[in-house]
Amino acid sequence: MNVSNLLKPKKIALVGASEREGSFGGDTCKNIMDFSDSSKYYFVNPKREEVFGQKCYKSVGDIPDNIDMVIICTPQSTVLDILQQSYEKGCKGAVVYASGYSETGTEEGREEERKLIDLCKELGIALLGPNCGGFINYIDDVYSFAFVAEKRDRKGTVGLVSQSGQLALSLMDNPKGKFSYVISSGNSSVVKVEEYLDYLVDDEDTKVVAAYLEGVSKPEIFVNALKKAALKRKPIVILKTGRSEKGSAISASHTGSLSGSDKTYDALFKKFGVIRVNDMEELLSMTHLLSTIKEYPKNARFAAMNLSGGETIITADIGSLKGINYPDFTDNTMKKLTEMLPSYATPNNPLDMTASLSYDSEKYAGALRAVMDDPNIDMVLIGYTLLLNIADPCIYYMTEGIEKVVKEGNTKPMVMIPYVENTRNPEYAERLEKAGVSILPPVVYAMEILKKFSEFIEYNPDEHTLDIGLPTDDKKETRRFLSEHESKIMLGNAGIPVPKEDIAKDKEEALGMAGKIGYPLVMKIESADIPHKSDAGGVKLNINSEKDVKKAYDEIMDSVTKYNSTAKINGILMQEMLPKGTELIIGVNNDPLYGPMILCGLGGVFVEIFKDVSLYPAPLNHKEALEMVKSLKGYPLLTGYRGGNELDVEALVDLIVKVSNFAIENKNTVAEIDINPVFLYEKGEGLSVADSLIIVKE
Amino acid sequence: MNVSNLLKPKKIALVGASEREGSFGGDTCKNIMDFSDSSKYYFVNPKREEVFGQKCYKSVGDIPDNIDMVIICTPQSTVLDILQQSYEKGCKGAVVYASGYSETGTEEGREEERKLIDLCKELGIALLGPNCGGFINYIDDVYSFAFVAEKRDRKGTVGLVSQSGQLALSLMDNPKGKFSYVISSGNSSVVKVEEYLDYLVDDEDTKVVAAYLEGVSKPEIFVNALKKAALKRKPIVILKTGRSEKGSAISASHTGSLSGSDKTYDALFKKFGVIRVNDMEELLSMTHLLSTIKEYPKNARFAAMNLSGGETIITADIGSLKGINYPDFTDNTMKKLTEMLPSYATPNNPLDMTASLSYDSEKYAGALRAVMDDPNIDMVLIGYTLLLNIADPCIYYMTEGIEKVVKEGNTKPMVMIPYVENTRNPEYAERLEKAGVSILPPVVYAMEILKKFSEFIEYNPDEHTLDIGLPTDDKKETRRFLSEHESKIMLGNAGIPVPKEDIAKDKEEALGMAGKIGYPLVMKIESADIPHKSDAGGVKLNINSEKDVKKAYDEIMDSVTKYNSTAKINGILMQEMLPKGTELIIGVNNDPLYGPMILCGLGGVFVEIFKDVSLYPAPLNHKEALEMVKSLKGYPLLTGYRGGNELDVEALVDLIVKVSNFAIENKNTVAEIDINPVFLYEKGEGLSVADSLIIVKE
Repeated sequence: MNVSNLLKPKKIALVGASEREGSFGGDTCKNIMDFSDSSKYYFVNPKREEVFGQKCYKSVGDIPDNIDMVIICTPQSTVLDILQQSYEKGCKGAVVYASGYSETGTEEGREEERKLIDLCKELGIALLGPNCGGFINYIDDVYSFAFVAEKRDRKGTVGLVSQSGQLALSLMDNPKGKFSYVISSGNSSVVKVEEYLDYLVDDEDTKVVAAYLEGVSKPEIFVNALKKAALKRKPIVILKTGRSEKGSAISASHTGSLSGSDKTYDALFKKFGVIRVNDMEELLSMTHLLSTIKEYPKNARFAAMNLSGGETIITADIGSLKGINYPDFTDNTMKKLTEMLPSYATPNNPLDMTASLSYDSEKYAGALRAVMDDPNIDMVLIGYTLLLNIADPCIYYMTEGIEKVVKEGNTKPMVMIPYVENTRNPEYAERLEKAGVSILPPVVYAMEILKKFSEFIEYNPDEHTLDIGLPTDDKKETRRFLSEHESKIMLGNAGIPVPKEDIAKDKEEALGMAGKIGYPLVMKIESADIPHKSDAGGVKLNINSEKDVKKAYDEIMDSVTKYNSTAKINGILMQEMLPKGTELIIGVNNDPLYGPMILCGLGGVFVEIFKDVSLYPAPLNHKEALEMVKSLKGYPLLTGYRGGNELDVEALVDLIVKVSNFAIENKNTVAEIDINPVFLYEKGEGLSVADSLIIVKE
Repeated sequence: MNVSNLLKPKKIALVGASEREGSFGGDTCKNIMDFSDSSKYYFVNPKREEVFGQKCYKSVGDIPDNIDMVIICTPQSTVLDILQQSYEKGCKGAVVYASGYSETGTEEGREEERKLIDLCKELGIALLGPNCGGFINYIDDVYSFAFVAEKRDRKGTVGLVSQSGQLALSLMDNPKGKFSYVISSGNSSVVKVEEYLDYLVDDEDTKVVAAYLEGVSKPEIFVNALKKAALKRKPIVILKTGRSEKGSAISASHTGSLSGSDKTYDALFKKFGVIRVNDMEELLSMTHLLSTIKEYPKNARFAAMNLSGGETIITADIGSLKGINYPDFTDNTMKKLTEMLPSYATPNNPLDMTASLSYDSEKYAGALRAVMDDPNIDMVLIGYTLLLNIADPCIYYMTEGIEKVVKEGNTKPMVMIPYVENTRNPEYAERLEKAGVSILPPVVYAMEILKKFSEFIEYNPDEHTLDIGLPTDDKKETRRFLSEHESKIMLGNAGIPVPKEDIAKDKEEALGMAGKIGYPLVMKIESADIPHKSDAGGVKLNINSEKDVKKAYDEIMDSVTKYNSTAKINGILMQEMLPKGTELIIGVNNDPLYGPMILCGLGGVFVEIFKDVSLYPAPLNHKEALEMVKSLKGYPLLTGYRGGNELDVEALVDLIVKVSNFAIENKNTVAEIDINPVFLYEKGEGLSVADSLIIVKE
C-alpha cells in the first residue's frame, strides 16, 4: 500500500458534506473551512446544493475531475459503493470514519471488515480506518479530521499516529501540540498503524515520530521502521498500552489488537533506542522537547538554575532519585558565579541563584552564560513556574536574560521546569520556545522525561545488533518437551559447554558409564514426561561408588514409577557431578511476534521473588550481552561480593551470545529454552550447564 | 510561645510602609490595600505622610493605640529597636522579612540571630522569620505577606506552613490553592516550623494541614502534632526535602536546617499516617483533593469512567501499576450498564463508556449513578481533559450529568483525571468543585495521589503505637562498642533468647565450659576492639572435642594478635553451635531527633545488595512488627518457599517487639544494636540470636 496516496492527495472528494455540528460530515467540513484551502475539496451530498457556501455534487461520479482521495463521512452501509465509485475516478486513498466493524466484537462486524479489506486490496486503495478520527497533513494542508479542535496554528515537526481518536484530539488541543501529521488510525484494517509509523520515519518534514500504540500486526514493518529511525537517529516516542492485565484486556476489546507481552516491548525498545512513555502528558512533553531543541547534545550532563532555595532542593531531590546527572561545576564556573551571586549564596549544581537575580536580566544572562559555558554541562534546566496570568514581573527579566544569551550564540539546550500544573502564559511560552526553551510539565514528569531524553541521546546504534529473529514459519502449533539429555545434545552441538553425560538403559549400562565418566556422579531420571525431576524423586547426587550406582538406580525407578506410572522413560542420565558454582538462569522465550527473547538472571529466589531478570531480543553481540548481565541488581554478586573472588562474567557473556545464536538459528522450531541452573565459577574457570530444558514447536 | 498572638492579631503596626513595587513594605501594603480591611493596620514610615491614601505614623511609639502585632519591613539593623518599641505598645507578635541571619552561614549572621531570639524570649514576642515571606490568615483577614500574588479569592480550609517563601507563593498563584493560613516561616528561629504545624492541627478552621519542610528542631512538638492529627484523623500532607544527598546538602545551606535521615521520616510518617508527597504539584493537588471531598470514604475501591477507549486503557495501566484497586462491578451494575451503553461496548472497571455518552447528560448521569451505587465502589474517577478554552461541548453534558447526580444526593466522592497538563476552564472547574469533584493533575501524578489517599483513608490510628522514644538526655557524646558477650547479656536480660555461652579466660576454662555447654561448639574472640571477628580469624565453628577446643584456642589467639596486637581481649567466647536457620537481621539505630528506629531484613545479600529492609520507629506493638516483616519483598521466603516449611514468623515478631522495648528502655544509652544474624527456624521452633553488637552512648 502506498501511504502517500492517502496522506498526500491533491484533489479530494468529501462524501456526506454537511453543516451539522457533532456529525462526521459537519465537523470535517468545518475544519476544512476553518483551516484549509477548500478549493481542493469536492463536497458530495445528494440532498444539498451547497455546504458552507461551497458547491455540493450529487455523487462522486458527478465530480467533473479525477480525485486522489475520498473522505467518507456517511454510514457503514454506503462505504463499499462509494469506494467503487471513487476508484473509477482514479482514487487511491480513502478515509472511513464509520464504525460497526471488528471493534464490535461480533461476527457480523468482522465480516464487514473482511469485505472492506478485500475491496481495498482489489482496487489498490490505501484506506485509513474504519472506526477512526481521520488525519491532518499540516505540511501539505490536507484536513480529513472528524473532531473540531481549538483554533490554533498547529504546524510543526511532530508526526503522530494514534490508535485512539480522542487521544489525538487531546494532544492537538494542547498549546504544545505542533505537528507535521496527526493520524487517528482506528482499526487500521487496511493500512496498518506500523505502516504510518514507517511513513513518518521516512518523511523529511517529520523530525520526531510519536505513536499511541495498542498493538502491532506486522512486526516486520514495525521493526524495520524502528531500525531505520535508530540509524538516522530520528527519535520515536511510543505510548504502548497493555502494561497491566486490566489494560491489556481493555486494549483487546478496544481496537481488537493483541497486546503482546509488555516486557517484550521494553526489551525491543531498548534495542532500538525507542523512547517509551507512560502516558499522554509524557508523550506530548517529550515530543515537544525533542522538536524544540535545535541540536541534541552528545551527553546528558545537566545544570539546574533556580531563583528559590526550596525549588532548588526539590530539583536536586527528584532529579537525583530519577538518576539525573548533575555534575559539579568547574572551579572557573564557581569563581564566576561567586562573583555574581550575593555573599550568602553557595554555588552548587543545582544552583540556587537566590531571588536577588529575579529582577535583573543582565545578571540573569551572566549567570546563565557562566553555567552554559561550563565544559561539564551539556544542557541547562531553568526552574520557574510560568503562570497563565502573570503577577510577578520576574519572568520579564528572566526571558530577556535568556534571549540575550541566545542572541550571543553558542548556546547549549535549555528547558524550563515549572513546579505546579498550569497553562503557561502564551506570549512568554512562545518567546521561550523561539529561544529554543521547551517548557516541561511539573518536576516529577519533567525528571522522568529528562531521564528518558538522556537515555535517547546516549544511545548509540553502533553498539546494538539492529535485527531481530522474526519467525518466518508460524504454522507449527504443537509444543513438545525435550528431555534434559536431548536438550543438552542440541546445546552441546551449538558449542555450549555441557557436562559429560550419557543415558543408561539398565543398571549394567549405568555401571559401565559411571566408570567412563568418573566419580562423583549425579543420576537423574531421563524422560520428557517428567520435567520436574526432583519432585518425582528422580535425582540422586553424590554417587561415589558402584554400590551407590545400584542403589540409586533402584530408588529412582521406584520413586518415578510411583510418581507417574505411564511416563515414557528413556533411561537414567549418568552425569558428572559438577562443582557447585553461583547459580544463574539463561532462558529463551520465542515471542510469536518478535522472535527469540533472551533472559538472564541469578537463580532461585533472585528470579522468583525479586524478579531480578533482564530481557533482550536476539540476536545480540558481546556488548549487549554484557549490558544484560550488568543491568541485574544482583550483578555485584558476580564481581567479588564480600571479599569473595570475581566470577567468570566473560564466560557468562559468551554463553548468552551462544544461546542467542542458537535461538536465532532455530527460531522456527524452538519455542522455549530454560538453562537452569548454570553454575558460574571464578574468573578463568568458566561455567557449567547443570540442567536444561528445551520446548520445540512442531 | 503563643502562636495565636502572632497569627490572630486585631491591631497591627506595619513599619516601613511604602508604595514601592518589589520592596517588602510596598508589596505588603499593596496586598493589604487589595485584599484586607486596611483600618486595622497602622502604617509607620518617618518619611511619609500617607501610603496608598492611608495615614503614616513617624514611629511605632506615635501610634495612638496599643498594638497586638508588628510587621517589620525595614532592614536588619532596625529590627531590635522596633521590637522593643512595639513591646512597649503591648505587642506580642512580630513578622521580620529581613535576611542577613543564620542563613548566611557566617558567624556574624548567627550572632544576629541569637540576639533576635534572646530579645523575643525576653519580651515574650512570637516572631515569624527572619528571612521569611510572612503570612496570611484568611480566616480573620490578616495580611502580612511580602510578595504580590494574583488577585483571587483564596479563602479555604488548607493550612500551609512552608520553609520556602517562593513555594508558598507558587501554591497561592494556582487556582487550586485555597487556604485558611499560608505561613512562610523562613529561618523559624523563634517560633519553629513545627509550632505552626501544631497550631494548624489544633485550628478548627483548618481541615487539611500542609507543610514544606526542610528540617525540624523540636521533634517533641512535631511528633505530638502528628499524634493529635492521627487521633482526630485530620490529614497532614508533608513535602519533606532532603531525599537525595544533593538535596540534603542544599537544605542545610538554605535555612540552616539539619535534614535528619530521610528514611527515618518515611518510617515516622508511616506510623502516624502522614501523607508524604514528592513535590509541590502533589502537595497542591493532594491538599485540594482532601479539602474538596466532603466525607472521606472508609475504603479505597475505585471505579474509573472514560469516554474514550485509549484513555480507559491508560487509566487501567497506570492505576494498576501504582496499586490502585479497581474491583469488578457487581452483576447488577453490569446489567444496568449493558442496557445503557451501545451494543459494542463491554462494561469493565475501568469503564469505557464510549463517545456515545458524550452528548447526553441524562445518560451520563445514569451511568454515573449505576457505577456509584455499586456496593464494591467507594469513589469514582471521571476521566476527562478539561481545557482552558473549550472547543468540544462534551464537558457541558458531563457537568450537567454530574450535577444531576449530586442533586439527587447519596453520592460517593468523585475526582476528575485529565490526560494532559493544562489550566482548567475556571467556570467548569468551579462548578465541578462545588459538586465535590477535585480535578487532579494528569494521570501519573493523579494515580500517585490516589494511592497515597488510599493509604491515608485506610490508616487506622488504633493499630499503631502513637509514641516514639524521644531521647531525654542528649548529653552523652562518646560511643563505645560492647563486645558480643556483653551485648548478649544485655539482650538476654531483656528476655531475648540468646545461646548458651560464656567467656573463657584461658585454655583450662575453655575446656571446662565446653563440657558444661556441650558439643558442638563455636569459639569466637571476645573483644570490643574487634567488631569484625571473622576478618581477624577470630571465629572457629564445629568444635567437637577437647582436642578441637585446644587447637582452636591457639589458632584464634595467634591470628587475632597478628590482626590487632593492641586489642584488649576479654577471652574466648564459648558458645553452643546453633543449628543453621534462615538468616535475618534486626537492628536499632537511635536517631538523634526521633529516638530508636527498628530495622528488620533478611540477612546478607538481601540487605546489602537488594536493600530489602523495613524501618519503623520504636515503640511498636505486635501488629506493627508483623507489618514490618510482611512488607519485606523477601517475606515469601518465610512462609514456605518452594514447598519448604513455614518459618516461625511469630517468634520473629516477638523478637522485634522485645528489641523495640529494650531500645526504648535504654533510649538514652544505646546508640545502635545490630543483631546479625538471627537464625529463624521452622514454625514452632523459634529462633536464635547468633551474633549481636551493641554500641552505647556514654
